[in-house]
Amino acid sequence: MKTVLMAAFEPFEGELVNASWEAVSQLHERMICGAHVVAKQLPCVFGESLQVLNDAMDELEPELVIVVGQANGRPNITVERVAINIDDARIPDNAGRQPIDERIVADGPAAYFATLPIKAIVEGIREADIPAAVSQTAGTFVCNHVLYGLLHRQAQQGGRGGFIHVPYLPQQAVRHPGAASMPLQTVVLALEMALSIALTVEEDKKLEGGATQ
Amino acid sequence: MKTVLMAAFEPFEGELVNASWEAVSQLHERMICGAHVVAKQLPCVFGESLQVLNDAMDELEPELVIVVGQANGRPNITVERVAINIDDARIPDNAGRQPIDERIVADGPAAYFATLPIKAIVEGIREADIPAAVSQTAGTFVCNHVLYGLLHRQAQQGGRGGFIHVPYLPQQAVRHPGAASMPLQTVVLALEMALSIALTVEEDKKLEGGATQ
Amino acid sequence: MKTVLMAAFEPFEGELVNASWEAVSQLHERMICGAHVVAKQLPCVFGESLQVLNDAMDELEPELVIVVGQANGRPNITVERVAINIDDARIPDNAGRQPIDERIVADGPAAYFATLPIKAIVEGIREADIPAAVSQTAGTFVCNHVLYGLLHRQAQQGGRGGFIHVPYLPQQAVRHPGAASMPLQTVVLALEMALSIALTVEEDKKLEGGATQ
Amino acid sequence: MKTVLMAAFEPFEGELVNASWEAVSQLHERMICGAHVVAKQLPCVFGESLQVLNDAMDELEPELVIVVGQANGRPNITVERVAINIDDARIPDNAGRQPIDERIVADGPAAYFATLPIKAIVEGIREADIPAAVSQTAGTFVCNHVLYGLLHRQAQQGGRGGFIHVPYLPQQAVRHPGAASMPLQTVVLALEMALSIALTVEEDKKLEGGATQ
Repeated sequence: MKTVLMAAFEPFEGELVNASWEAVSQLHERMICGAHVVAKQLPCVFGESLQVLNDAMDELEPELVIVVGQANGRPNITVERVAINIDDARIPDNAGRQPIDERIVADGPAAYFATLPIKAIVEGIREADIPAAVSQTAGTFVCNHVLYGLLHRQAQQGGRGGFIHVPYLPQQAVRHPGAASMPLQTVVLALEMALSIALTVEEDKKLEGGATQ
Repeated sequence: MKTVLMAAFEPFEGELVNASWEAVSQLHERMICGAHVVAKQLPCVFGESLQVLNDAMDELEPELVIVVGQANGRPNITVERVAINIDDARIPDNAGRQPIDERIVADGPAAYFATLPIKAIVEGIREADIPAAVSQTAGTFVCNHVLYGLLHRQAQQGGRGGFIHVPYLPQQAVRHPGAASMPLQTVVLALEMALSIALTVEEDKKLEGGATQ
Repeated sequence: MKTVLMAAFEPFEGELVNASWEAVSQLHERMICGAHVVAKQLPCVFGESLQVLNDAMDELEPELVIVVGQANGRPNITVERVAINIDDARIPDNAGRQPIDERIVADGPAAYFATLPIKAIVEGIREADIPAAVSQTAGTFVCNHVLYGLLHRQAQQGGRGGFIHVPYLPQQAVRHPGAASMPLQTVVLALEMALSIALTVEEDKKLEGGATQ
Repeated sequence: MKTVLMAAFEPFEGELVNASWEAVSQLHERMICGAHVVAKQLPCVFGESLQVLNDAMDELEPELVIVVGQANGRPNITVERVAINIDDARIPDNAGRQPIDERIVADGPAAYFATLPIKAIVEGIREADIPAAVSQTAGTFVCNHVLYGLLHRQAQQGGRGGFIHVPYLPQQAVRHPGAASMPLQTVVLALEMALSIALTVEEDKKLEGGATQ
């Protein structure tokens, strides 16, 4: 039986919850397209987050790994295209560390592309009437750090991997005037669709999803 | 038995649906706090919209009238504070008319404040974990036109009235990249709460809801 | 000789300068279209700001009064259409007062329209390649407070009045990541044009400048 | 004598000018920090743009190449951190081509980091009171295409290279309501500073410039 690892983050920047974990934890032990989903919470800490992810990968040997993070203020589900080899923290992580312009892997390449069918996932989610888009940057904080580390490992050991950012939940947006949000069940549904497309679509679709700048 | 009139708009600007009517039509014939809710669709046309609203008010003699409109791109429920005595159309209405700087009521005052407990409504919706805020302008298009006309009539004949703007529905936002949205059932819930608060709160609460600019 | 009073504000919300005063102070004692310009700084304080403005109007008996304020984050010159009879402070003013939903004039009307040719001013500024627009709300803070008080007085005593919001200066935007700004000399030029148009255009132009929401 | 090549783009997306070329053309034949600046206009066309750049590099053998592009709507000067190996066009280029998910260099790495001291450049521009920031993505259109091609060549042949995005000019923003802009002379000054810093700073500064998402 195939195993899928879904990882998401603990709260950060003073929030009480992290939308990504609220959603991903609902998928724990679910069967999707014949695969067994295991959910794992990651600390929002450089280094440690990757260690927890690597330990879970050692244990589960998943064929597919999707990491989910919270993108404060974004109104839609965004599927990340690429991770870059740099830690550059605008704010301290949950352990108080704030690396500036440090390589994630000292001799690693500048970037890895996600190995998910990102256009097919965006199209599938949108066809379910849930706003979604490709994102051209996962930032330079812990989200990008984990995605780069994941793709670096999979480049050597095989397996598919990627990252999906989700909006604030409504109860978070209430405390951030003017911020967009998405209800938990909508996010869960979008992640289920992403999983099932990632498990069944071999080659990505040629669909528009670029940015002029 | 008390009657409440809830009015909302037909689609405009090329949309197939109008989020306001999708939500308000679900409240038709509902009983809320002992009041009978009647939903009415308004054309998105200067003049005609007010005529349809006035006819419904003649027929129903409602104690409370809440008009609901769609605010493209806004991420939250916004309760309007004021309507101003001006029609100034950025785009043509659904009948192709585009008035520029015309008074809605030739000798009417410059503005009317909504007579709903707007702060209490915003607080109540937010306590239900739905993002909401006071809005200081209803624009100068058909939404403001209807609110001004409603409040002008109620200033003479009595009754309470106001206006609530709602976001795109998710299926609309899918076609407007980057636009925020709110699911239909969340919008319906917010409007139910607005109605029940408007029906039961006599004096508005002193709660922060201003804007510096 | 005609006298024009231009008022602008002291810094607020922790800023070291206020873009409005930086610009308006450069117009002090200038002659524009045969009128003598007097610049006056107002405290960013409810009540006191209007007292300083009223004292200056008593002394100068200006035919035209334009108040200028800083609109944090806006990218363009905005000419205000209307002031509403409400103080509702999101943040404390410079004297620590934070009125919530209080009338500016107890028995005053809900609003006054600015008596400047706002469309002609916006058009003139834009023809000089400076981004400008009509604004449908001056907020509910000290800017709206002063504009309402000014228009209330002029409604009784005559004279024309209005309000123009200006962006951050670049040196302010540097400390507000992602905020738009406009150089001082561009703002000064826009205000000169606004003054000359206000002094020479009797009837406003019928130009599009509305908002749908 | 050192030669610096500054390249910028022809107008696109229906604009009459391109802010990047308006600024860069003013630097043609200038001497900055002992280096001779040559400005070159690039077509906004996949492939052809790189061909023109390569031809100029063959001819001039510049030690430093900075490409400048226009980022519609951004309020500040942004220095790009990275270019990724993908063409994904949201709109057709000026030759009508719209590649979707095609590699720029078939067997090239996923990305290259710009080899400019990007943090020092941002700091220097900001110290001159001009808003500036690091950007984590140059998009997937012709700008990213040219930056990737440039860095790929320099990875083999040596030399430093990078990309700077500049806002609309005010005369462009006038036709895009609500868009931010920056005056031409401010942009020119920022580019001069970027050049002089790139020519004199060997190792970049450890300064915050990251993004959480």
